[in-house]
Amino acid sequence: MLHATVKRNTYQDSLRLMQVSTALGRVAGVNAVSVMMGTPANKEVLRAAGLGADELASAGPSDLVIAADVVDAAVGEALVAKADELLAHQARASRRPGLPSARSLERAVSIGEPDLALVSIPGEYVASETRRLLDRGIHALIFSDNVSVEDEVALKLEARERGLLVMGPDCGTASLAGLPIAFANEVHDGSIGLVGASGTGLQAVMVQIDRLGGGVSHAIGLGGRDLGAEVGGISCVQALRALDDDAGTRTVVLISKPPAPGVRDDVIGVAETLSKPVVAHLVGDRPQREVDGNVHYARTLEEAGRLAVALAGPRGARDVTLRPDQRWIKALYTGGSLAAEAAALLSAVIGEGERGNGYVMKSGGHEVIDLGDDRHTRGRVHPMIDPALRTERIPAVLADPENAVLLLDVVLGHGSAADPAGPLASAIADGLARLHADGRDIAVVASVCGTERDPQSLSAQTAALERAGVAVLGDNAAATRHALATLRRRDAPPRPPATTSAPIRRLLSAPPRIINIGLREFAVALHERGAHVVHYDWAPVAGGDPRLQALLESLG
Amino acid sequence: MLHATVKRNTYQDSLRLMQVSTALGRVAGVNAVSVMMGTPANKEVLRAAGLGADELASAGPSDLVIAADVVDAAVGEALVAKADELLAHQARASRRPGLPSARSLERAVSIGEPDLALVSIPGEYVASETRRLLDRGIHALIFSDNVSVEDEVALKLEARERGLLVMGPDCGTASLAGLPIAFANEVHDGSIGLVGASGTGLQAVMVQIDRLGGGVSHAIGLGGRDLGAEVGGISCVQALRALDDDAGTRTVVLISKPPAPGVRDDVIGVAETLSKPVVAHLVGDRPQREVDGNVHYARTLEEAGRLAVALAGPRGARDVTLRPDQRWIKALYTGGSLAAEAAALLSAVIGEGERGNGYVMKSGGHEVIDLGDDRHTRGRVHPMIDPALRTERIPAVLADPENAVLLLDVVLGHGSAADPAGPLASAIADGLARLHADGRDIAVVASVCGTERDPQSLSAQTAALERAGVAVLGDNAAATRHALATLRRRDAPPRPPATTSAPIRRLLSAPPRIINIGLREFAVALHERGAHVVHYDWAPVAGGDPRLQALLESLG
Repeated sequence: MLHATVKRNTYQDSLRLMQVSTALGRVAGVNAVSVMMGTPANKEVLRAAGLGADELASAGPSDLVIAADVVDAAVGEALVAKADELLAHQARASRRPGLPSARSLERAVSIGEPDLALVSIPGEYVASETRRLLDRGIHALIFSDNVSVEDEVALKLEARERGLLVMGPDCGTASLAGLPIAFANEVHDGSIGLVGASGTGLQAVMVQIDRLGGGVSHAIGLGGRDLGAEVGGISCVQALRALDDDAGTRTVVLISKPPAPGVRDDVIGVAETLSKPVVAHLVGDRPQREVDGNVHYARTLEEAGRLAVALAGPRGARDVTLRPDQRWIKALYTGGSLAAEAAALLSAVIGEGERGNGYVMKSGGHEVIDLGDDRHTRGRVHPMIDPALRTERIPAVLADPENAVLLLDVVLGHGSAADPAGPLASAIADGLARLHADGRDIAVVASVCGTERDPQSLSAQTAALERAGVAVLGDNAAATRHALATLRRRDAPPRPPATTSAPIRRLLSAPPRIINIGLREFAVALHERGAHVVHYDWAPVAGGDPRLQALLESLG
Repeated sequence: MLHATVKRNTYQDSLRLMQVSTALGRVAGVNAVSVMMGTPANKEVLRAAGLGADELASAGPSDLVIAADVVDAAVGEALVAKADELLAHQARASRRPGLPSARSLERAVSIGEPDLALVSIPGEYVASETRRLLDRGIHALIFSDNVSVEDEVALKLEARERGLLVMGPDCGTASLAGLPIAFANEVHDGSIGLVGASGTGLQAVMVQIDRLGGGVSHAIGLGGRDLGAEVGGISCVQALRALDDDAGTRTVVLISKPPAPGVRDDVIGVAETLSKPVVAHLVGDRPQREVDGNVHYARTLEEAGRLAVALAGPRGARDVTLRPDQRWIKALYTGGSLAAEAAALLSAVIGEGERGNGYVMKSGGHEVIDLGDDRHTRGRVHPMIDPALRTERIPAVLADPENAVLLLDVVLGHGSAADPAGPLASAIADGLARLHADGRDIAVVASVCGTERDPQSLSAQTAALERAGVAVLGDNAAATRHALATLRRRDAPPRPPATTSAPIRRLLSAPPRIINIGLREFAVALHERGAHVVHYDWAPVAGGDPRLQALLESLG
């Protein structure tokens, strides 16, 4: 038999109600049960599921409905009691001492002075609530779905007009100035800024960046429709420009499911005007080129993370300022194939150059030398066994005022020197100290070919190089790409950085102060990790009647 | 003044002599000093260096020469005493209790019953010594350089005739059945076999395989000239066929500096006939295609390692035997962009298929489903928050006898379930136990999007899945590629595996028993890691006179 109960003006968020529904479904004597707010759409769902009891007719959007198919009325009554108990338990469980909260927007804003709203109320209320936020100069991250695309376009245009950013609707992932918001992973801070119309796409790239030794400045979610034909990438373009403007961001990553064709061209067009390198991955897209100007195309999410780390460098690496007359990459290798790989990757960018005369490649002052080659080892021990042959060349390379980057390999394993990084690190630290005393600098970039169980230990050798001021990348191709990126950064940027609005610049300048509107769990999670957050205990106004609501808005 | 001393019939290897030369150079009153064997080439080097004292004339190839430019005769005498002391010290330092050693080849062979010789004597003696080894059915890894290419071709042809393998000359790196030889890293055992005309190239790929969770069966070095026009890839082709024949190898990797054009075609032609997937990276080569039949082209050494692990799967993963009627990949995703990436990678291989109706892709029985899509979550909690929506589908997917692979994502981080892998692992372990009881099986492949510092911990979630029998790859693209490779392995192989000679099959069947000829350090290192090794205390025969030697050989 059908059994339905309507609880007037008892707003609960959908996540909680789904959890309650699942728990009630396990009660003996219950064939089916669903607990929902009484919106027209929800009532339709209940009717379609065969739970359309007559009592539903009177339920409004701010009324809670418990609709069940049960074996008898006693079970129905027991269900209602159990629902009350579960909701009360949820409310107790999510109560947190010290979490500021308020029952009106005005009060919440005056307590929290928020610059970002995290919005997770039902979709039909999103447009009006978000307008009230934008009116107050507050950026919005809209987690809610079921927002019409017309509302999305209107909100994003209004926001842009005011210099504000709307992320979403249906934006599940962001991380701003080190603060993960909603669905986000714990990653290290760093200089890679991400923009993505794709939640798990952003998460996957952030995770790879973290694993490969890089770090993240910001990850800006857009919602899955931002690069569609209707929205046309409004927020994407704002976010790209904001990251180009952001001092803490060195490399930009753009992730999206396949955009509408015209939008793809628009967005890539903007990416091409940025002053910083951009790694683009449009899931399912098969790019024709690996790199085009400042835009590097990745074929997978993993590769997007890998390229970004190669371009930006490892987190914690020192910031090297090069003078315009520092022009050359000097690569001193002990491994022949590693030298050949570096020469191939460099040649693709700076031109073929020459071979021979002891060089694997020489193009202008750019040089790749394999010191293990017979020409250099004549009568000397191979530099993988005795580092001296290379170490003694380090001071001259560092001292040459035209050199910009010293690029190195360090090969561990059986047969290699007991401590190849040791003497190398000493020579580099000494040389850099001398340069720094002179007000000069040079970038030193390396990769270590080895495992943790090698006699020399990968982590120990890496740490020795890092202490000496070396940027250590995860493999030789990454190190070579980082050397090239370092050289390009020295060049006057092709154009001035894009500019962003003052409010967006402020948003990215520090972890945001958040007003949470909707799922209380988000506020609790943010509060527990020490974020500045106020929870606005939202419920539909005017009993959820959309006509009355519209009237109130037009008056207010 | 010049000061030279000749010590008759005192053979020392060049590594030791270089170390002695370096130490003597630091003695006060010494302008220049070099300690070498008195071969014609070395005497020429000494003369060119301005150390050509008259005494050199009488020195033969098996005589040790100490040639110096010193301030007075007393310093010269002191140098000789110091040299004696250093050589004696080296001899003591390299003496190891328990290292079997012999002064004749016959004796060494009878003590060690070797199947592989590690040859590091001076280049001019390599051809004759290697022939003596091949005559005795012993494979050779020739570390020495300065061997003529004519000798290399002749030795490799003779070896091939006898079903033996010659690695080198100038081969610095190998690892056979888990035993690293000469310059090699400590990597985990596994199912990836490598062939490389490139020492540090092999090392770099092995290291990446190890870091990405894969393992190595064998790494066969060839020497840098094997893929040149003269040698024509003789050993490379033998090694490729041997790895295709080897039961412990599942995926083959081919690494080389750019080969001669005709040789490239020959070698790739052989790779295309193998029954196993091949990852090819020819340093500096820019392949036109990513994959061509069974040959996958990598653009960097790092990518070669990454593709190999994706194809072979992680080390320690269980071996899944599929029946011919298990045909479909079922991908159940919680992340929309991850599902889109999987669909894109699968479509490129198995065809576009259809979208819609709740499928991100459907092609025959292949299905990619995004369970986070509205169509599946209607009234349910998103499967990233509550794994139930996916977990409850697992039994049916595992039970369907036509399914070959279940492909999954697991997304960690804030917002996600506290233990997404837990219920998933239980459902998989239960389902697999039921199948195994029935004599059936199915492959389960996943990636985990998360970091160690995520609330759920990457390593803990990965371990739970692995315990349940899931092959966990490092990222979603790798997991998808592994699902495809698993499906291809189920197919009847395109052709029978290549066959190899009985001696080469024996060589790869267990860690080799080695006879070391030349640098004693190699024998010491192998002995210390518990390898079966005998050191043959080689010195040039017949006082090093090449004519007399040739005569002795022709008689012997």
